[in-house]
Amino acid sequence: MPITLVGAHVNGKPNYLTVAFCGIVQASPAMIAVTLGKMHHTNEGIRENRCFSVSIPSRHMVEVTDYCGIVSGKRVDKSRVFETFYGKLEKAPMIRDCPVNLECRLADVLDFGGASEVFIGEIVESYAEERYLCNEIPDIEKINPIVFSMYDNNYWGIGERLGKAWCAGKNFGEVNDGKKVENDKPKEDKFHCKCNWKEIGKGV
Amino acid sequence: MPITLVGAHVNGKPNYLTVAFCGIVQASPAMIAVTLGKMHHTNEGIRENRCFSVSIPSRHMVEVTDYCGIVSGKRVDKSRVFETFYGKLEKAPMIRDCPVNLECRLADVLDFGGASEVFIGEIVESYAEERYLCNEIPDIEKINPIVFSMYDNNYWGIGERLGKAWCAGKNFGEVNDGKKVENDKPKEDKFHCKCNWKEIGKGV
Repeated sequence: MPITLVGAHVNGKPNYLTVAFCGIVQASPAMIAVTLGKMHHTNEGIRENRCFSVSIPSRHMVEVTDYCGIVSGKRVDKSRVFETFYGKLEKAPMIRDCPVNLECRLADVLDFGGASEVFIGEIVESYAEERYLCNEIPDIEKINPIVFSMYDNNYWGIGERLGKAWCAGKNFGEVNDGKKVENDKPKEDKFHCKCNWKEIGKGV
Repeated sequence: MPITLVGAHVNGKPNYLTVAFCGIVQASPAMIAVTLGKMHHTNEGIRENRCFSVSIPSRHMVEVTDYCGIVSGKRVDKSRVFETFYGKLEKAPMIRDCPVNLECRLADVLDFGGASEVFIGEIVESYAEERYLCNEIPDIEKINPIVFSMYDNNYWGIGERLGKAWCAGKNFGEVNDGKKVENDKPKEDKFHCKCNWKEIGKGV
């Protein structure tokens, strides 16, 4: 699971909660889902303001990220833990230190009959400093996101590159059934990058 | 994003599709979401049989995993690409080679107005060989799952351990506001492991 920080305005102040139950819903319109326990402080803010953010912390932020999952905004003011910035929506606080921030308009709230609820957000805009991009695309090696394994409850970094999608398996078909599989989506390699905060579009 | 293989019976045969838009919906009742383009072969099978599987391939399976994302079951028979096994549901084929397999009953299908649809599955059972477990818990270092970065379209391995959840951030609070944060969930370290396929429960 990916480690994210979900931001919302609660009682007029930014609040951030660590969330691992998070997944891309679809690419277009770009939507993301985050699951939060119903008792969390953040939920009220998302409902009230109909928006939230999903920020991707970098591995050097593992301590502060874990801290946001340990302490509740109900008893600790987390509004100054990070330097906050805003995008198009007024009440979706985002984190200056995070390499990628997604600004979301609340699209739906789902309840599957458990102790948590699922917030579906339409990604209105996404933000990254150019130093985290390569060829205008977020670069996972520069972002250094955190992966979470459950029950043993460990945080992990990203390891080595294993291959290219729509490419690594090309020869598998040839070897296994003599059938040529076309690589219909040739991918460019990474190249030189540039710098500073910019909108990187809805589709990220 | 995590790389998964979604399995379903289509026209009476197992079919497997590579999916990265996948996330945990909630822990209890245990539910998972996978997003599939509406045109995929797999979707018909999930609808017809009201069940599917989510399997976690290991890094040594990157070629065959990519292959399942390149070729469509509409034109290539993928039923023999893997050795299939079944659990409690009759038509949710799972992959013997994958370290973790989740067997899901279809709970809902969501459409947010794009070219894809979201299948919500209630995890009926999960399976792993004991050699992938540690202390009865799936061990990410043994599983060696694959992470996907989008637009640059690369597969990645898991890297080094960065810290323990509900623990790594304990001192952040002390340092930053003088407030002691209790670590209310002490975690055991990993220890000696055992072997062979077993059910590891719904909550994985």
